[in-house]
Amino acid sequence: MDNRRISAAAGGKDKILFTPGPLTTSRTVKQAMLRDLGSRDLEFMEMVKDLRGRLLRLGGVTGRTYAAIPMQGSGTFGLEAVVSSTVPTAGRLLVAVNGAYGRRIARIARLHRIDTVTLDVPENRPVDPAGVARRLREDAAITHVCVCHCETTSGIMNPVREIGAEVRSAARVFFVDAMSSFGAIPVDLEACGIDYLVSSSNKCIEGVPGFSFVLARLARLLETEGTARVLSLDLLDQYRGLEANGQFRFTPPTHALLAFHQALIELDREGGVPGRAQRYRENHQTLVAGMRAMGFREYLRPEDQGPIITSFHFPDHPNFDFEEFYRRLSDSHYVIYPGKVGEADCFRIGSIGRIFPSDVRGLLAAIRRVLNDMRVELATEEREPGP
Amino acid sequence: MDNRRISAAAGGKDKILFTPGPLTTSRTVKQAMLRDLGSRDLEFMEMVKDLRGRLLRLGGVTGRTYAAIPMQGSGTFGLEAVVSSTVPTAGRLLVAVNGAYGRRIARIARLHRIDTVTLDVPENRPVDPAGVARRLREDAAITHVCVCHCETTSGIMNPVREIGAEVRSAARVFFVDAMSSFGAIPVDLEACGIDYLVSSSNKCIEGVPGFSFVLARLARLLETEGTARVLSLDLLDQYRGLEANGQFRFTPPTHALLAFHQALIELDREGGVPGRAQRYRENHQTLVAGMRAMGFREYLRPEDQGPIITSFHFPDHPNFDFEEFYRRLSDSHYVIYPGKVGEADCFRIGSIGRIFPSDVRGLLAAIRRVLNDMRVELATEEREPGP
Repeated sequence: MDNRRISAAAGGKDKILFTPGPLTTSRTVKQAMLRDLGSRDLEFMEMVKDLRGRLLRLGGVTGRTYAAIPMQGSGTFGLEAVVSSTVPTAGRLLVAVNGAYGRRIARIARLHRIDTVTLDVPENRPVDPAGVARRLREDAAITHVCVCHCETTSGIMNPVREIGAEVRSAARVFFVDAMSSFGAIPVDLEACGIDYLVSSSNKCIEGVPGFSFVLARLARLLETEGTARVLSLDLLDQYRGLEANGQFRFTPPTHALLAFHQALIELDREGGVPGRAQRYRENHQTLVAGMRAMGFREYLRPEDQGPIITSFHFPDHPNFDFEEFYRRLSDSHYVIYPGKVGEADCFRIGSIGRIFPSDVRGLLAAIRRVLNDMRVELATEEREPGP
Repeated sequence: MDNRRISAAAGGKDKILFTPGPLTTSRTVKQAMLRDLGSRDLEFMEMVKDLRGRLLRLGGVTGRTYAAIPMQGSGTFGLEAVVSSTVPTAGRLLVAVNGAYGRRIARIARLHRIDTVTLDVPENRPVDPAGVARRLREDAAITHVCVCHCETTSGIMNPVREIGAEVRSAARVFFVDAMSSFGAIPVDLEACGIDYLVSSSNKCIEGVPGFSFVLARLARLLETEGTARVLSLDLLDQYRGLEANGQFRFTPPTHALLAFHQALIELDREGGVPGRAQRYRENHQTLVAGMRAMGFREYLRPEDQGPIITSFHFPDHPNFDFEEFYRRLSDSHYVIYPGKVGEADCFRIGSIGRIFPSDVRGLLAAIRRVLNDMRVELATEEREPGP
């Protein structure tokens, strides 16, 4: 490969990422990585401790009821850590599935020979709390329930608070995949009855990829002794290591952690979760208004749609080809989510990361140009609404 | 925590790391992280492809006989990926153990219910190829053999080439943990009969932590269909994903990969593995000469000692306290390996990372000052030898 090309690009401006992650991050978040700290250095350990406390506060935790446990690897590693470390041999896991990420959790559980059942819901419908409650009444063997908060497959929001209430009243363990929502959609762990929540460094907190994190209810976690099936992903062992001496059991991604700590400070400065939610909502509203004005239609009903990722139907025009559309946008420095939604002919655009309504308007203008170049005419309204 | 403190430190100079990793890296390696690339972006995928090719060339591979497979997480994740993805249910793993890292591999294998036996060797003695050969003759059920190249516990080098010859002539699968040696000690995968080799991003290639990598003999890897026990760590699936479309199955640590690519370019500029080996040898020799001059004694015989990490006996003086010694050195901006060698009262100093003989001389001067401050008098020679 031509190394000069990489170096040249590094001098210029990177493409803006409208993806589910890795995302565009602030310059100061990336600059926090210009250091080499020893993983057992006091300063590093203090930073990790502060980072863990900040994560708990984002989840509305005030006392010592939960612990924040960073786990090396991507978000999937964190999900697999919870599944393989907390569901015992005699347990049965119910996964509510309305997208690829729910299906993946069920696949992980089955690989670990965990007795797994699913509650299957169409990809364009949220999981119904009453359906979960019914299933729990019918199947007393279910011990654990898992649901995605925002199913990244479509961008749909599942009502975790209402589902959590049913799971709690049925006295089961509740596990939420909040990968693409945590930090941007308010979640109170206690109020939602959540026992385990997983998210990752490169989503709404706007850090760089390198680790996931688990927020675990301590009373539950401490019951899982002897359950873990994977050493690297042993959640209780990872927790005990961090508590015993402030250290990770195995080499942590020190630079990604430094970036994440800076990202948490910047999240705070933006007004915390409500402040960030506000910006993402503005990004999303700008996007939807602009796309509608061009004649695009959303896949989800507005009441089920979150502000994280939005799915749009492919335009009904013979000249539209998604691969070409994606490539031309990328060549214009706008990267959208590649690939299509599982069941439907849709494409997806993210509104998270260090992007603002002005960036979204830039993307909309690029989409307009690309459609024009591809000679895709849509039944558009007269003018794009203002910001 | 006081955020101003972190910010203030960021403006100053970081401590120099004489540890087994994370290590001190070059400024340009860290600066390569000042970008946000999409994980499915063409530029990123080309970079990963180039990085994988460079890794194979470091292992002396010329044809299509091996594949380089980066794996998210720390080095332990890479080791667990190989153990859990390649040893079948009907297999038996022999781990040659002369330190904590060998013991950890056996522990991982047993957690996955793999039939595991060990060849136990004292921590200050290398694994004897004849001992491995004898064990393989006696136990026909052994299918896989694992050894650490440089046992980070003591810094001892195990003769992987000679062990590999025995494993190959006995027609078993050979797996080498080259965590702290790859990139600095020449290893020819084919000549050493290696089927799987694991190392990580933050060791002798001088990248930042965030992933490990496996160099796998393709013919062996392709035989492992259906063996993997962990989705995140499924080696064959990770390989197939990268080959199919150049993408990781799950979010990669894009920034750590960019840093590593830059580190590989800088390794090349230093003269590749021989060039780096030369610098590390000089670091090691400077260290040993200076420590001897102060009255310290090495734990290992010189012929068993590698240039990566050196273990020294605690000085035989009532005022010596390792924790205080470590802390005082750290306060002087020199971070050595914390904790002691498993079996012996020894401490360890690394000579890898972006450090030079002048840095080692700085460390030696700091050790001299600290000993003086602690009133630890050793039976020293007259003068420290010159550089």
